[in-house]
Parts: sequence; C-alpha cells; structure tokens
Amino acid sequence: MQVEEAAGILAKGGMVVIYDGDEREGEADLCFHAASASPERIQRLRKDAGGLICLALDGKTAKKFGLPFYTDILAASRHPIAKMECKKAAYGDRPAFSIPVNHKKVYTGITDIDRSLTIKKISELIEADPRDIRRRFVDEFYSPGHVFLLIGRGIENRHGHTELTLELAKQAGLVGTMVLCEMLGPGKALAKSSAREYAEKNGFAFLEGKQLWPK
Amino acid sequence: MQVEEAAGILAKGGMVVIYDGDEREGEADLCFHAASASPERIQRLRKDAGGLICLALDGKTAKKFGLPFYTDILAASRHPIAKMECKKAAYGDRPAFSIPVNHKKVYTGITDIDRSLTIKKISELIEADPRDIRRRFVDEFYSPGHVFLLIGRGIENRHGHTELTLELAKQAGLVGTMVLCEMLGPGKALAKSSAREYAEKNGFAFLEGKQLWPK
Repeated sequence: MQVEEAAGILAKGGMVVIYDGDEREGEADLCFHAASASPERIQRLRKDAGGLICLALDGKTAKKFGLPFYTDILAASRHPIAKMECKKAAYGDRPAFSIPVNHKKVYTGITDIDRSLTIKKISELIEADPRDIRRRFVDEFYSPGHVFLLIGRGIENRHGHTELTLELAKQAGLVGTMVLCEMLGPGKALAKSSAREYAEKNGFAFLEGKQLWPK
Repeated sequence: MQVEEAAGILAKGGMVVIYDGDEREGEADLCFHAASASPERIQRLRKDAGGLICLALDGKTAKKFGLPFYTDILAASRHPIAKMECKKAAYGDRPAFSIPVNHKKVYTGITDIDRSLTIKKISELIEADPRDIRRRFVDEFYSPGHVFLLIGRGIENRHGHTELTLELAKQAGLVGTMVLCEMLGPGKALAKSSAREYAEKNGFAFLEGKQLWPK
C-alpha cells in the first residue's frame, strides 16, 4: 500500500498498522487518530494488539501542553533511582515516554470508557485557546494515570512508532495526536506477515516504516 | 472460597482473582506470585484480563530496593506538571504507582518474554545480599520500562488490589511480590459474576477484598 492511500484511510477515521522495520524493534503497532478514539477502539487495541496503549503528541503539541519527557522528570528529581534513566533502548533509540495521565472525570482510569475519555479530552484541549492549554492541562488531568503520553522527536530525528504514526497524521493533514499499541504474538512481537494479514482481513491500512522516512 | 484455600493455591504457583469491593473500584484483578512468572502467564494476563500488567512490592521490599512512589519523583522534579500529582483517585485512594522498569537484558521490553524476564529478575534480586540490592537494582534495570511497579501501603492502611494481593502472599508465606492486572469487560470493568465464573472455569481461586481485611 502507498502512503497516500494509508493517509486517506487515517483521515477518514480508519485504523492503520505500521511495522517499523527489521533493523529496529521489528514490531507492528496498531494505531488511529486521537480524534477517532472510542471505547470500542480501545477494546480492540487491548484485545487485538495487547501492548501498552499510548497517545503520541508531536513536538509542537507537547510544547503547547508544557509536557516534559519522563526522563527529564526522573533526572530532575535527584533521587538515587534517577541513575536508572534509560539513555538508549536495545534497539538504539532514546525512549519517547512522557508522563501517564487520566482526565479527572474518569473513575479507575483503566476501562475502555475511561481511556477513551482521557484521549478524547486531550484531543479536544488541543483545539482550545493556546493561552489556556497549559493551565487547563494541569487543572483537568492528573498523573499517574493510564494513558501513556509519548512525545515525537520528528521523523528526521527518530524512526520509532511515535514518529512514524505522527508523520502519517501529518501527511493526512491531521493534528499530531495518534493512539498506538504494540501488536503482540505468543511470547514475541507479532510477526510482520501476521500483522499484514490482520490489517488486510480488517480493512485497515498497512505500512512499513521506511515508506515514511524522509526522502 | 476461604482465604486459606486461595493462599494454598497461590503458594502452589496457581492464579487468583481478587474482587476489591462494590464500595471501591468494583474491579477484579487477575494475579499470581512473581516467582511464578512466565511468558505464557503474561500472555494470559494481556489476553484474559486486559488491563495494565503491574508488579506489586510490599513496603519492606520496596525499601530494600530504594523505591519511591511515582508521585514523590513528580513532586521532587519541581516541574510545572508536578501540580498534576494525583492525591486521591475517584474511588478514594492515593495511587500505588512507583516507577515503570525493564531489565537491561530485554529487547523492546513489552513482549511476553521481556515482561516475564523483568519480573523474574526482580524476583531473583530480592533473594540477593540485602547490601547489594539497591546498587544492583539501579545497575541492572532501567526506567521508563514496561513493568509498572506498585508499592503496598499495608492492608491496615489501604484496601487496594496492591495491598489485597500482597496480603494474600503474606498469608501464603510468600515474599511480598505479586503480579496483577485489571480484568476488563466491554467498556467497563469485568462484572464480579463474570470474574468469578472465569476463575471457576479455569481452576483459579476467587476472593473478595473484605475477606482479606484485618479482623
């Protein structure tokens, strides 16, 4: 499938499977745009994908929210465990994690309804007056929560699922907020061929990471 | 089922479903002792339960590891988002979250094999010379990772799944390290009756939180 076709599917609210590459994690993530979040979709991520359900924000959006990387918070704490900071994972990259959050209106935060609500509320806040975003983010959400925020470093700097999904959103003309979840198989990451079959069977787009790398 | 019977099942490496109570989260967690972790069991948690896969340590063990609460790290960072600190969730308790970790030998950290490895390695480290634990924990693990550490506040102080599962471990004569995951149904937490049926069908123990409260 071509990137243009996948971007079209995403823009219409569809789901996309992106396999990063054999040289990196060797993993496919199931993703959709944050504005299309629903409890049914969160259920699909946990049942069909099985990894961690994350919400990726591009650098510009993260800045509007005043969001730091998790490792910045860990380092700034000056606690002895700050030394545990992950500088580089086994596949070669710095982690994309920011902080985990819940919207204050959730109950436990982990249910499909609650995770969908947290994601929708962040998605809505992006459309607010930019001068209000930081204050409202701090007022209306709390941490720790059950939606793991990720910050994209830009596809020119990193080829992780965070950047790949955000690049696809950009090419689809969407705001840079994507929900993603690792697709797992028994024991290991779901094989590329199985991820592709899953996408075809369900009418979802399928892309490989290198299709989204800068030319 | 009586607590003694459930403790016996846990001590033999079996799995237990614990429903906290209608007055609290109204949620059942699927759990087992950390020493019994395996990739097959992690797969079962993500497929059958669907929540966040966490590793709870009792207060004494967390102290040996030098583990802080996540909220302590957030507060100590003095970052503007420190104000997002969750003091009390909707069901009335302070969160039990510490930091998320991976063992340095994992690849991505999220696969069944990797999450099982991280849990087994923490479980093994508890048995090490107490004078080495803090140094080895910082040396051999990194954060952020994909296993969410929780710290128990003791069943006399909090009635969350963290404390309930650790209390059962204690009554089973096991070290205070339990793997747990929220059982989810479509949209909401899995109903108590469905959680009980699931436990019965699979030969797992089923308990209600109040059975583990202090007399």
